Amino acid sequence: MSDTSEIGIGLLGMGVVGSEVARNLLLKADRLAQQVGRPLRLRGILVRDKSRRRDPAVPPALLTTDPEDLVARQDVHVVVEVMGGLRPAYDLIRSALSQDKHVVTANKEVMATHGPELVRLAEEQEVSLLYEASVGGGIPLIGPLHKDLLANEVSSLHAIINGTTNYILTRMSQEGASFQTALRQAQELGYAEANPANDVEGADAAYKLAILASLAFHSQVTGAQVYREGIARLSAVDFRYAQELGYAIKLLAIARREDTALSLRVHPCLVPEEHLLAKVDGVFNAIEVEGDLVGKVVFHGQGAGAKPTASAILGDILEVACNIASGRKPAHTGNLKDGLSILPIEELVTQYYLRVTVSDSAGVLAKIATVLGDLGISIASVIQKAADAASQTAELVIMTHPAKEAYVRQAVQQMKALDVVREVGNVIRVEQQA
Amino acid sequence: MSDTSEIGIGLLGMGVVGSEVARNLLLKADRLAQQVGRPLRLRGILVRDKSRRRDPAVPPALLTTDPEDLVARQDVHVVVEVMGGLRPAYDLIRSALSQDKHVVTANKEVMATHGPELVRLAEEQEVSLLYEASVGGGIPLIGPLHKDLLANEVSSLHAIINGTTNYILTRMSQEGASFQTALRQAQELGYAEANPANDVEGADAAYKLAILASLAFHSQVTGAQVYREGIARLSAVDFRYAQELGYAIKLLAIARREDTALSLRVHPCLVPEEHLLAKVDGVFNAIEVEGDLVGKVVFHGQGAGAKPTASAILGDILEVACNIASGRKPAHTGNLKDGLSILPIEELVTQYYLRVTVSDSAGVLAKIATVLGDLGISIASVIQKAADAASQTAELVIMTHPAKEAYVRQAVQQMKALDVVREVGNVIRVEQQA
Repeated sequence: MSDTSEIGIGLLGMGVVGSEVARNLLLKADRLAQQVGRPLRLRGILVRDKSRRRDPAVPPALLTTDPEDLVARQDVHVVVEVMGGLRPAYDLIRSALSQDKHVVTANKEVMATHGPELVRLAEEQEVSLLYEASVGGGIPLIGPLHKDLLANEVSSLHAIINGTTNYILTRMSQEGASFQTALRQAQELGYAEANPANDVEGADAAYKLAILASLAFHSQVTGAQVYREGIARLSAVDFRYAQELGYAIKLLAIARREDTALSLRVHPCLVPEEHLLAKVDGVFNAIEVEGDLVGKVVFHGQGAGAKPTASAILGDILEVACNIASGRKPAHTGNLKDGLSILPIEELVTQYYLRVTVSDSAGVLAKIATVLGDLGISIASVIQKAADAASQTAELVIMTHPAKEAYVRQAVQQMKALDVVREVGNVIRVEQQA
Repeated sequence: MSDTSEIGIGLLGMGVVGSEVARNLLLKADRLAQQVGRPLRLRGILVRDKSRRRDPAVPPALLTTDPEDLVARQDVHVVVEVMGGLRPAYDLIRSALSQDKHVVTANKEVMATHGPELVRLAEEQEVSLLYEASVGGGIPLIGPLHKDLLANEVSSLHAIINGTTNYILTRMSQEGASFQTALRQAQELGYAEANPANDVEGADAAYKLAILASLAFHSQVTGAQVYREGIARLSAVDFRYAQELGYAIKLLAIARREDTALSLRVHPCLVPEEHLLAKVDGVFNAIEVEGDLVGKVVFHGQGAGAKPTASAILGDILEVACNIASGRKPAHTGNLKDGLSILPIEELVTQYYLRVTVSDSAGVLAKIATVLGDLGISIASVIQKAADAASQTAELVIMTHPAKEAYVRQAVQQMKALDVVREVGNVIRVEQQA
């Protein structure tokens, strides 16, 4: 006779995502039981304040304020962590794995900071640690990288994995809005937080890139190893000039294998407008993976929100539950340890867009071209924008051929010292092969 | 001590895909062994003619012309079928499963025709039957539908899953080429076969849709149950008019849940040009899945070719091999049997594009509008295209509001009988919500 006993779930966190997960576990219970072959039972939900009014679908008796007690319960087999933040989430995940509980988490900070250690712990304990929801909301990414694309040697990832900044950049591009105006719109719509630093400075995208790159390149990468620049320095004219040149501006998260090193970076990029990533607008996410066999494959969808994130979490819960129901050991594929080093940003070779405000006088371009030429940086194109009669300045938009970041940085310093240069308005990397 | 014995693979078929799979198994052997924890060993390759010259990476001693012998070998644990065609592939897959061999197949005809029966057989024998390569080349689709998106109730699939026809339609759209010219170009480039019927008449896409729909809707759907129309009737003017109206024309494979029935169809569609699927050009494939939780998620990549297909096959081989190496039973998730019926095409409700050649005289539109109005079909817009003075005809392009297919078919019959109508040039369904 087959085992029909319940599979117990402890839910850590009851924000919008936790509520959606709880609702689905409760309201779709019959359907989920049919899929798994055994009933799933929500044993308890960790909250901060039991007295707060909740979704009527959630029985108040399930609420608890004691995480360790919930994790330790004999009848909890799967711990689902949706609290966010590094602590106490990290400690609770460790504690759960150490007590032989399977763990499903949506926590990008924890996975991007302690992922390899936690994966190792899960392997030792012979339990599952699944984290599909930590990147890209409901878009299947971890699964495909972990399984479907496993035979590939991945050469690069190019991703739009922060919906807040993509929304802001879309408004700036489509409406000529300033960064501050677009940010305010995003905040009014609930797409950006009151303190938007984590999104607009690229930290969120860096965490997510670290998680994807660790999987794709079989290396242990943390969020702190990802070079990052935010989007606050972009101005409306950059979008206009980029458009004239045939480019969109996107905050890309890029991981690329360069021989035995890995280039890891999050920063604004000029992307050719015919490329799929250039067409990803609003809060959507898209992730392009390039492999030696599969070529380029792109995943596109909602990268955030309660329902998409719950889709990923529930998918992971179903996988764990089906394993428990069929007595399968957790999958720990991919024993490759390629151990790539991290390429310093100064070593990056790419094309650059330079916007320089100069005095409107003869011989200016010669001086700037000399600075670039002396550092071995060759110019692909220059556009001189209409002069401003009042301030007697003009604007130069320079596209370079591929050059080393270190030399471009030197060139910018030298340009700033030229008497004919009023300001280096912006320097933006160009990603042709995205 | 852990088991380090070899996992044996029998490869049925040595076309371009089979050769790529063989090359990777041989040349990446060390890497694959590291990933699995045990060596993978290619035991034999079924060919028609052993004397034909092959890839020098493949030792001639591996070649055999006896499929049953290869399948039955004690040291073959995984049978990989890349022969294509219904027979003898179906019989060999059955035979392999019956002998407790795991099977990896790229065969869409077999899976779209006998999939449910073979999946049941694999479950009974407690072996794996994996078929990621049967749809969309290397794009992860079966895996995500089977696992990552499992918690969703899928409402629709919209897919471009035949690269040949998408290439032809792209040429027709971008260059104003006729179908015959574009087909010839596709044949010259090797994108279309000498006998292109299977692609251009939609049979290939229908097979693939049946496989995806069976998974997404937990129902047993065969390729024969998919309504289909090919692309041969499209003419250059249809693309021009569609463009003027803000649409692209794509051969879409659509599966949509309508209460307890499933609408399944492959036919040319007008797709709003701002939609992602409208932007998929050339031989690329893209598949949009809509679920109650995840919203719309799109998968995009190369849908054919030796390397992308090998990516999917090798991913499946690695999954089976990792299961064997870790003593895991095969995953048989998703015991849901929703058993939806198939909606007859006549019951479809959608918008229609009608191109009608009429005599250039007064009162024509009134007569046509009366035919449509009497059948309850309301007109969203009409464009009268410039009259042809020589033939004294004009062309009307009519967009309807949503109407039932059965009534539209009646209307077309009645229009053809009108003395003012010279020809109903084309009727194309419109997919607004794609």
